[in-house]
Amino acid sequence: MTERTGRNCIMGNHVEIGENVTLGHNCIIEDEVALADNVVIDHNVIIRKGTMIGKNSFIGANSIIGEKQITAFDGKRKESPKLTIGENALIRSGSIVYESSKIGDNFQTGHQVTIREETQIGNHVSIGTLSDIQGHCMIGNYVNLHSNVHIGQKSQIDDYVWIFPYVVLTNDPTPPSEYLQGVHICSFAVIATSSVILPGIQVEEDSMVAAGAVVTKDVKKFEVVGGNPAKKISDIRTIKNKITGENAYPWRYHFSRKMPWEDIGYMEWVDSGMSLK
Amino acid sequence: MTERTGRNCIMGNHVEIGENVTLGHNCIIEDEVALADNVVIDHNVIIRKGTMIGKNSFIGANSIIGEKQITAFDGKRKESPKLTIGENALIRSGSIVYESSKIGDNFQTGHQVTIREETQIGNHVSIGTLSDIQGHCMIGNYVNLHSNVHIGQKSQIDDYVWIFPYVVLTNDPTPPSEYLQGVHICSFAVIATSSVILPGIQVEEDSMVAAGAVVTKDVKKFEVVGGNPAKKISDIRTIKNKITGENAYPWRYHFSRKMPWEDIGYMEWVDSGMSLK
Amino acid sequence: MTERTGRNCIMGNHVEIGENVTLGHNCIIEDEVALADNVVIDHNVIIRKGTMIGKNSFIGANSIIGEKQITAFDGKRKESPKLTIGENALIRSGSIVYESSKIGDNFQTGHQVTIREETQIGNHVSIGTLSDIQGHCMIGNYVNLHSNVHIGQKSQIDDYVWIFPYVVLTNDPTPPSEYLQGVHICSFAVIATSSVILPGIQVEEDSMVAAGAVVTKDVKKFEVVGGNPAKKISDIRTIKNKITGENAYPWRYHFSRKMPWEDIGYMEWVDSGMSLK
Repeated sequence: MTERTGRNCIMGNHVEIGENVTLGHNCIIEDEVALADNVVIDHNVIIRKGTMIGKNSFIGANSIIGEKQITAFDGKRKESPKLTIGENALIRSGSIVYESSKIGDNFQTGHQVTIREETQIGNHVSIGTLSDIQGHCMIGNYVNLHSNVHIGQKSQIDDYVWIFPYVVLTNDPTPPSEYLQGVHICSFAVIATSSVILPGIQVEEDSMVAAGAVVTKDVKKFEVVGGNPAKKISDIRTIKNKITGENAYPWRYHFSRKMPWEDIGYMEWVDSGMSLK
Repeated sequence: MTERTGRNCIMGNHVEIGENVTLGHNCIIEDEVALADNVVIDHNVIIRKGTMIGKNSFIGANSIIGEKQITAFDGKRKESPKLTIGENALIRSGSIVYESSKIGDNFQTGHQVTIREETQIGNHVSIGTLSDIQGHCMIGNYVNLHSNVHIGQKSQIDDYVWIFPYVVLTNDPTPPSEYLQGVHICSFAVIATSSVILPGIQVEEDSMVAAGAVVTKDVKKFEVVGGNPAKKISDIRTIKNKITGENAYPWRYHFSRKMPWEDIGYMEWVDSGMSLK
Repeated sequence: MTERTGRNCIMGNHVEIGENVTLGHNCIIEDEVALADNVVIDHNVIIRKGTMIGKNSFIGANSIIGEKQITAFDGKRKESPKLTIGENALIRSGSIVYESSKIGDNFQTGHQVTIREETQIGNHVSIGTLSDIQGHCMIGNYVNLHSNVHIGQKSQIDDYVWIFPYVVLTNDPTPPSEYLQGVHICSFAVIATSSVILPGIQVEEDSMVAAGAVVTKDVKKFEVVGGNPAKKISDIRTIKNKITGENAYPWRYHFSRKMPWEDIGYMEWVDSGMSLK
């Protein structure tokens, strides 16, 4: 039983509820949903059939979790694998997360985020307000997508990647076509605001795409590319923090908030062997 | 009467319900709504006064269909022409469609789409998640707008057009002003990701605007334009599919999924005379 | 008591309701909310604890007003200053406005707008559909943000500013970092579609940023800048209205709709001394 259930809630069959779970008003919990201990569901939330949500998670008002794929024009929903969300999720209001996806622990979203089916997301990932994850893609661990990022199908994003607002990862070299090629963003890369990455492009480790760049060629390690079409404009190791005057990149040596090396710094974290766990 | 009606639904006066109609929980169906046979309305949907929805249509959760115009600061709604949606619509959750628009058959949207008043939409049109159709515009048949496309007022989009994410069709040459000039996208044109089309521009048949282009001059038939400001970068007939090595454009000869020539190819479809129907 | 309250509404404790207030169906009004005279709340709206809404305001369906900040991973809401919204607000459906912000009179939004905490907004401000105000920022009076504008934290926007769709005001010169520098947009500036303003940039009075510009240097009075990176492309005083052939800028001398000089023109309004009030 829930610790507290708001008014007008509708509960399906075979729902599993952990200890100390709270539901707001007007929630619709469909059949076979499992809510682990201490989960908080805000008002007007719909949890679709079979969804599993890990302990200590928060689901914001008006969200739809485990949304079903619909075959156009028949209004019928497909039977698909369940959505699994790990522990400590914080999903802000108005978000839509589809079934057939798997999301790790410590996941966080802004508002009105859409995450389509067949999305694999690691641990400690944050996805900003209005971002649109098109599904059929892979996102690693400790990845930060800011607001209004568009991740096309077949994209692969490795660990510790930063993507800023209005970036688009595309996937069709000759649109419209049946031959999609996803973008691959390697670990520790930074993709700045409003840039577009063309299909099949690889952005290597420790590189940066500058704001507004249209990237038509692979970006090599340590390169900073910018412009339309994007060209190499500098080596990332030469960029200084404007306030401190110190080197700012590769950022893993200079920034640690919410990273696994937060308390000790990247170098000591690697030296300690903790990065291998 | 409906085939099935969820809990807490509120039904207005003079509502017409066809056979085998399903309503989810917490739906609000205002006065004079007409839902044709086999319509499925998901949870928490609001259907405003006078809206007509064609048979076999699906309306996703949390959508507002037939939204009323509001005169700022008095909270009063205007009396306006009804919204009409054709058969086989698939409107995904969180979308808002205004009154005074007319939408054809086989319409499809992603999530959180906004379609303002005085929008005319033909048949077989698809509009992606978060797209923002500003109203007072015309969209033809078999048009595909991907996610997060912004269509300014006075835009005209003909048939068989493709527009990709984060494209903006603008309309004010000297903002702010009272003199709007819409963009005209002709049939079979392709507008790639994150490009901006300036006011009054015409993009001709079988042409392409490359990703990230800022288009300040008309685009001629077969031209591919790119850059900021956009210049001609190639002839579309020279672009090869990267995987097959074959010509990729004009796309109507090489792509047929969900097009009326799907089973027979474009040439045979034209030769058969079916394109004239 | 309200003039009219829809079905299934839930009312908290110590709620203050003015005269002639209307609530739609399924509204959740939390504790200590104050709704002034003639406020209209549409269906499914959530008003969070302590929110104050001025008279004659309209809150669209599915909106969340006074949304609480959440400390990640504990599902706990912080106690924070209340949200205050002035008189005559028109907030369209699906919008989310956080606590700890202060909004003046005659405020207007499109749909699905997000306004985060610690946002100061003056009078007569309009914010378009899908815009994302990140909080910790200041917006003056008579500011118009069109659809899908992203305002980063630490931004300062003065009075009479126009910002068009898909513009981003950034704030981190070396992302990711802890050293944010906001953008400053001065009065009467115009920021056209899909441009990006880099961190710490100042855009001076009566200047213009052209569509698609990536602005890396301060923009001086009367300058028009465009391109990637943006360079000066003309003097704003030389731009003609394409239809009338007359000078179009500085726009304050040529455009007056909804401005305080609407009936008399900018010059006479200044000469009259009314601009000093």
